[in-house]
Amino acid sequence: MTDVNAWTSRKAKLRAHLSNGGIDAAFISNPTHLYYFTGFLSEPHERFLALYLDARTGEETLFVPSLDAEAASRAGAGVPKRLVPLSDTDDAYAILKRETAAGGPVGALGVEKSFLTLDRAERLGEAFPGARLADLTGFIDSLRVRKTEEEIARVAVAVETIEKVMEHAVKQAKIGMTELELTAELEYQMKRLGADKPSFDSIVLTGTRSALPHGVPEAVPIARGDFLLIDIGVKMNGYCSDITRTFLVGEGTAEQERIYETVLAANLAGIAAAGRVGSPVAEVDRAARETIAAAGYGEFFTHRVGHGFGMDIHEFPSLHGENRHPLEPGMLFTVEPGIYVPSIGGVRIEDDVYIREDGSVRVLTSFPKTLTRIG
Amino acid sequence: MTDVNAWTSRKAKLRAHLSNGGIDAAFISNPTHLYYFTGFLSEPHERFLALYLDARTGEETLFVPSLDAEAASRAGAGVPKRLVPLSDTDDAYAILKRETAAGGPVGALGVEKSFLTLDRAERLGEAFPGARLADLTGFIDSLRVRKTEEEIARVAVAVETIEKVMEHAVKQAKIGMTELELTAELEYQMKRLGADKPSFDSIVLTGTRSALPHGVPEAVPIARGDFLLIDIGVKMNGYCSDITRTFLVGEGTAEQERIYETVLAANLAGIAAAGRVGSPVAEVDRAARETIAAAGYGEFFTHRVGHGFGMDIHEFPSLHGENRHPLEPGMLFTVEPGIYVPSIGGVRIEDDVYIREDGSVRVLTSFPKTLTRIG
Repeated sequence: MTDVNAWTSRKAKLRAHLSNGGIDAAFISNPTHLYYFTGFLSEPHERFLALYLDARTGEETLFVPSLDAEAASRAGAGVPKRLVPLSDTDDAYAILKRETAAGGPVGALGVEKSFLTLDRAERLGEAFPGARLADLTGFIDSLRVRKTEEEIARVAVAVETIEKVMEHAVKQAKIGMTELELTAELEYQMKRLGADKPSFDSIVLTGTRSALPHGVPEAVPIARGDFLLIDIGVKMNGYCSDITRTFLVGEGTAEQERIYETVLAANLAGIAAAGRVGSPVAEVDRAARETIAAAGYGEFFTHRVGHGFGMDIHEFPSLHGENRHPLEPGMLFTVEPGIYVPSIGGVRIEDDVYIREDGSVRVLTSFPKTLTRIG
Repeated sequence: MTDVNAWTSRKAKLRAHLSNGGIDAAFISNPTHLYYFTGFLSEPHERFLALYLDARTGEETLFVPSLDAEAASRAGAGVPKRLVPLSDTDDAYAILKRETAAGGPVGALGVEKSFLTLDRAERLGEAFPGARLADLTGFIDSLRVRKTEEEIARVAVAVETIEKVMEHAVKQAKIGMTELELTAELEYQMKRLGADKPSFDSIVLTGTRSALPHGVPEAVPIARGDFLLIDIGVKMNGYCSDITRTFLVGEGTAEQERIYETVLAANLAGIAAAGRVGSPVAEVDRAARETIAAAGYGEFFTHRVGHGFGMDIHEFPSLHGENRHPLEPGMLFTVEPGIYVPSIGGVRIEDDVYIREDGSVRVLTSFPKTLTRIG
């Protein structure tokens, strides 16, 4: 992986964006963005961690909790040479003011308005009196939404790992085992297979509980005739995967089969629509939704069809029915239609889809989608 | 547990705070605060979830993603009767404006400035034109910092669980096992024992890597003569635990023993200082730091002595050497001094400490602290 070039290229784009927009400097404090621009991955909790990039002087400074300074200095060529360690008792904003003074007064400061909290914004106002805060969120999103093949290679590792975990689920799940027990097994496998962590709270739901789209696993045993819905993902090397498969425990009913086949058809329709580069992303939602509505289950598909992901599990774009943003090369998102009938249960089938530079679609997930019975 | 009274009492205090401060209404969007005031625990990701409380009319409204509306309505008596479900395609701020209009124009709106992002604040400005945003963070922190025995009962369950996991660690850890493998084992046990999730990224570090205070487990095997540092916690029923123990693999050296005994003495000194109700919290840090400095390791204790916790793993107060805030009944925090010598490794010993209403100290963690050899 040619990471060094990636960091250099991204920072160059950021610098150009600042210069073109008359923004004097950038204050980047979202840890995910810091990773994107420097290669240094760290969760500072409430501590102060920020990349300051002065577009006028070109100087880059990383303000870093002192206990992470050593790790930052070893994180690679994307990290600024200039590190300012901050102890827990330092007044970070006073030090920020002092250490950035060489660039002269800041008229406009680029920040992430979707990340920066009001109290921090007010403190920034003290460090840069009179500075206008310009939002960099849209620009950074526009960079991040266009994933490179190098990034997709990382996502593919996370997908491969979670699919091994899903295989394990099919082998391990049995009648009488609880949602919580199966969740524990699966998260154990994630770790064993080298994942840093689940990319979101694992969802393992059985019976009518599978109709809760954001339900939480409980000590409820898997029973014959249940749907078993498993929505899991991992984060590895800074990138996420996200997959859902739904299984049938035992034989099931004809209606359960019909629901499953309808969701599968909607999933395939959504994936097919993902290839229409230039059309609104809403088309993916529409294609899946029409399939489900045509089968008479329209009222039971209660969420958007998918979401972008990458370094975060939820990223731009949101694939809902009103989003007119066009499908573009480089986009990576989930396609995950579902039908949730409270009295029967829910089925969701979710794949990870990438639009290549040439506009062709690569489905990263390859776990079988034909109706599988377990137990 | 008398949860209903807890929610009612907390909302009453919030209402009184608003009225006394001339704040017309509160807009609470931090999911942890929502749980604290309503008993509804949910992570909405980028979706819109907020409690709106009008201090003038007394009306409470919960704006909730439609896919969580069902769960919210079942979450208990603390949840407002008035639920407004929002779909992914709704304009949440327009609906907020419409649904709160009955209270009349808002002059001052209470928000969490430590949580609310700039972009959301700007959107709120559209829903409540001309409203001044008043910060509720300090007030809510002042409520949250005073934990009730009922809350501590929940923390105690999380502590009991993580101590079982630590016992498991002592049994399972052996020479040749990697940090990652041991981490996987421990997180598996957390789930099996009923934890919702780790309360933070588990830290399992061996050898000189244990000198990285925020190091991440890697595929590095445990070896004879290593320190093995394990810093873990779980979240259950909305509350966290947090414990660190450091073990010696095999015999170790006299200096390793000396470092261990010094950290243990610092840990005990810190806990003793925690009982000085009315003194600055800095005293806890000072007591531990002086112990370590007296032994000649002062430069190797590179972080604050501890942090408040509860529903979040990091809460008010921060126990650093400059914090003049007094020790108060109801406070719950960690005491976790450490010595990190790059060429030898690190030792940290962390306990969870509660100051009861009568000012006496309860150490929730009871896992043995005498130097334990494994492997």
